[in-house]
Amino acid sequence: MGLKNTRAGNYPEWYQNVVAESEMAENSSSPGCMVIKPWGYGIWERIRDVFDEKIKETDHENCYFPMFIPLSFFQKEAEHVDGFAKEMAVVTHSRLAMKDGKLVPEGKLEEPLIVRPTSEAIIADSFSKWVKSYRDLPVLVNQWANVVRWEMRPRLFLRTREFLWQEGHTAHATAQEAEEETKRMLEAYRDLCENTLAMPVLVGRKPEHEKFPGAVDTYCVEAMMQDGKALQAGTSHFLGQNFAKSANISFVNKNNESEFAYTTSWGVSTRLIGGVIMTHADDEGMVVPPKIAPYQIILVPVIKKAEDEGDVMNYIGKIAEELKKHAPFGEKIRIKIDKRNKSSVDKFWEWTRKGAPIICEIGKRDVDGNNVMVKERLKLGTSEGKQILNATDFVAAIDDRLLNIQNEMFTKAKNRLEQNILTDITTQEEFNKYFAESNSWIEDGKQGKVAFVRGKWSGDANSEELLKAMKITIRCIPFDQSGTQGTCLLTGKPATMDVIYARSY
Amino acid sequence: MGLKNTRAGNYPEWYQNVVAESEMAENSSSPGCMVIKPWGYGIWERIRDVFDEKIKETDHENCYFPMFIPLSFFQKEAEHVDGFAKEMAVVTHSRLAMKDGKLVPEGKLEEPLIVRPTSEAIIADSFSKWVKSYRDLPVLVNQWANVVRWEMRPRLFLRTREFLWQEGHTAHATAQEAEEETKRMLEAYRDLCENTLAMPVLVGRKPEHEKFPGAVDTYCVEAMMQDGKALQAGTSHFLGQNFAKSANISFVNKNNESEFAYTTSWGVSTRLIGGVIMTHADDEGMVVPPKIAPYQIILVPVIKKAEDEGDVMNYIGKIAEELKKHAPFGEKIRIKIDKRNKSSVDKFWEWTRKGAPIICEIGKRDVDGNNVMVKERLKLGTSEGKQILNATDFVAAIDDRLLNIQNEMFTKAKNRLEQNILTDITTQEEFNKYFAESNSWIEDGKQGKVAFVRGKWSGDANSEELLKAMKITIRCIPFDQSGTQGTCLLTGKPATMDVIYARSY
Repeated sequence: MGLKNTRAGNYPEWYQNVVAESEMAENSSSPGCMVIKPWGYGIWERIRDVFDEKIKETDHENCYFPMFIPLSFFQKEAEHVDGFAKEMAVVTHSRLAMKDGKLVPEGKLEEPLIVRPTSEAIIADSFSKWVKSYRDLPVLVNQWANVVRWEMRPRLFLRTREFLWQEGHTAHATAQEAEEETKRMLEAYRDLCENTLAMPVLVGRKPEHEKFPGAVDTYCVEAMMQDGKALQAGTSHFLGQNFAKSANISFVNKNNESEFAYTTSWGVSTRLIGGVIMTHADDEGMVVPPKIAPYQIILVPVIKKAEDEGDVMNYIGKIAEELKKHAPFGEKIRIKIDKRNKSSVDKFWEWTRKGAPIICEIGKRDVDGNNVMVKERLKLGTSEGKQILNATDFVAAIDDRLLNIQNEMFTKAKNRLEQNILTDITTQEEFNKYFAESNSWIEDGKQGKVAFVRGKWSGDANSEELLKAMKITIRCIPFDQSGTQGTCLLTGKPATMDVIYARSY
Repeated sequence: MGLKNTRAGNYPEWYQNVVAESEMAENSSSPGCMVIKPWGYGIWERIRDVFDEKIKETDHENCYFPMFIPLSFFQKEAEHVDGFAKEMAVVTHSRLAMKDGKLVPEGKLEEPLIVRPTSEAIIADSFSKWVKSYRDLPVLVNQWANVVRWEMRPRLFLRTREFLWQEGHTAHATAQEAEEETKRMLEAYRDLCENTLAMPVLVGRKPEHEKFPGAVDTYCVEAMMQDGKALQAGTSHFLGQNFAKSANISFVNKNNESEFAYTTSWGVSTRLIGGVIMTHADDEGMVVPPKIAPYQIILVPVIKKAEDEGDVMNYIGKIAEELKKHAPFGEKIRIKIDKRNKSSVDKFWEWTRKGAPIICEIGKRDVDGNNVMVKERLKLGTSEGKQILNATDFVAAIDDRLLNIQNEMFTKAKNRLEQNILTDITTQEEFNKYFAESNSWIEDGKQGKVAFVRGKWSGDANSEELLKAMKITIRCIPFDQSGTQGTCLLTGKPATMDVIYARSY
């Protein structure tokens, strides 16, 4: 009952299969945009709720800023920033008119509007009105919003023209405070990825050429997908006074002097769902960590004779009531009784493809024996993954069971990450050879496996070109530096900096 | 310490003052769009959370559909619908380029994209892919999203180019089921308005000329603002097979025949916040119903001598801990200790303008006497509104106190609504005279008061023009019809239908 493609057979096609068969999302008639379906959106809601709590715990407040940004706001940025991204949706008209039986745009705007690719510019404009004195600082806001980047090769969740995200924006009186904020939210992302998504990450700083345009420093969390490629899961930017200067966010400090504020921004998006898929899904479909599963337990009635239906449904109702008294992870348990008019086998495979953590099948025999057939998605196909349990015991131990699944998923992914960071490549020659040989799958879309390489980098200005030619990237300069001397794997020059080299999404 | 303008002095200016002084929202540098600030967005989050629970209880699932809709999707609609709204943001380019030092739009799209004004068309397109058999029905989805309508006279919350809303969309196998759904969600809106926003509403059906384009029937909830004008608070549409036919949502029914589905849509928006303001705010600022207050209780330390600070903060911390054990309305209580470096008097007035339901001022004397100075926003300026209470008693009774405030707010607004529906106007002459005389404030922006008129309507085709000339509207045909005969107030013809006539936002 597996997917059309396996990870080993054709990884990119496998990914598309998982998304389609789990009914998380699909391509839309709106070019390059996706429809996020209930199962995918339910996962996003869980991620949002967990992280929103963290945002509020750390004293940020949610706001909403306009999605249309006047073109002139980008003019200065474009003048100053080389890496200025130009792929954006531009609104030029405000009306439709019928001409010769055809609708055409009319009402040309005096100034075109850009659909936000990110909101630094428009939010800095508000900050400049809100901040007058050091007493008004810090300003700590966040918004949950849709953003648009005109991707030419869209892929569901990973790269669509419109996607959903949160973007935090803050302004501070000192550089130190702003840098602390940047790192605090990076740590919040690490915690979200590891403890909620069960997706281990490496944390560090981006090299100069990978920074957000306008940032002094960009920090990131980087995850490893099952094909060994890296996925940037979240970024946190220390923007120094750059945006404050262009938008004039100035304040009177304690010494009665006018000064520019220091700002930060940080974001994670629906791309995280792509990361969760490529961290946990298998050849049968999706596997959702219990903490973010829209339903953690599915109760499937197995009715063999029509006259048993009353008993079975009654029994399932009672189990559901008992389960509802539980709050694994401190939140109301999420269960679903699947009453649809479909065979229980079809239901089982549907929820298996969706990756619901636990599927319980319950028939008349279970009613009579006070039992439940418990199937764990993570252990599908193993003897452990399919157990007949006493219903009372099953319910009593449900919190632990879900916690164990969550922990096992994290451990499995953590082991994969740790076992796939090569640290024994020490020369430029070995390095080139390694990435040349583990390159093949990129060429023909077939499975190959490419590990991360942790090694030296000189920081040389020509690195960007060399990396591009090799189709690899520096994912980050990890916080945990060895401090040793060595040879830059990329240039062969002496170097002291440790970095993570990898292919990436 | 009141607002610059009063309701009686200049109602429209008063409204702007409330929004500004409560820091709920402000105009943005993005023309016609608003920035929703933390206090306003917090209110929206509460509304969203309450209604989202209702959406899920009634078996709807949240999704997310693209905000860009290809122009061709509107072509058919435009051909068929007279009232087709043409004010929409049109995306025509996908890139910015620098020419002669200036950024200009480039990358002209083959087909322009419309930023969704509402999503019937793009969602029906998805439904047509999802629905094949009667077994796939009903489809019950909802999305929380931003939408755009190119308003020429924007007003914060009431009418901005971009706003936030939820839009539910469903497809059913029979007309009856779809009509039941339409009314179920209308009832959910009534419940939301009355029991969560404390804003009483009239429920009914829209006359033909006020229907949503493409709807068979549009139902609505209508509220009365303090100036006697009506505000449409929510609508629920029975779309029949109209959208199913244009998008080809067809299914094989139980008799193995192909049939078009019956669809519905329903929505409420951030406009509700405008309604809440004009239902509850007074000349001192906003008054927020406890159920949707971002903070229900503000604890303000009053420090007269620096050495008291430790004691006072300690005591406040303890009260906060005790309060946190409470869950009024079945949700965690929302409290804020206002530790900012500002005078307690300034804090009091700030939270008064914001309309926090309860403000507690606590100084050293209160610590010593185990007391709390409790100020109720709703009773500001009365002896009841300012009481020194035993802290233990105050905490113990907090759930009841908040519930009472919520109920009092509803009762007050309900009485206002009921007392301002005139039913004794029975002739066309009286009717014309009434609206001519209570019209003045519209002309000069000054206070006047105009009640709703409940009376007969003939349903004549020329009604729309007559209403327009009188600057009034038919808000709804209420469900509770008297069934009596009478004279149409608008045309003087015989009529049996009761309607609500009013000026409106």
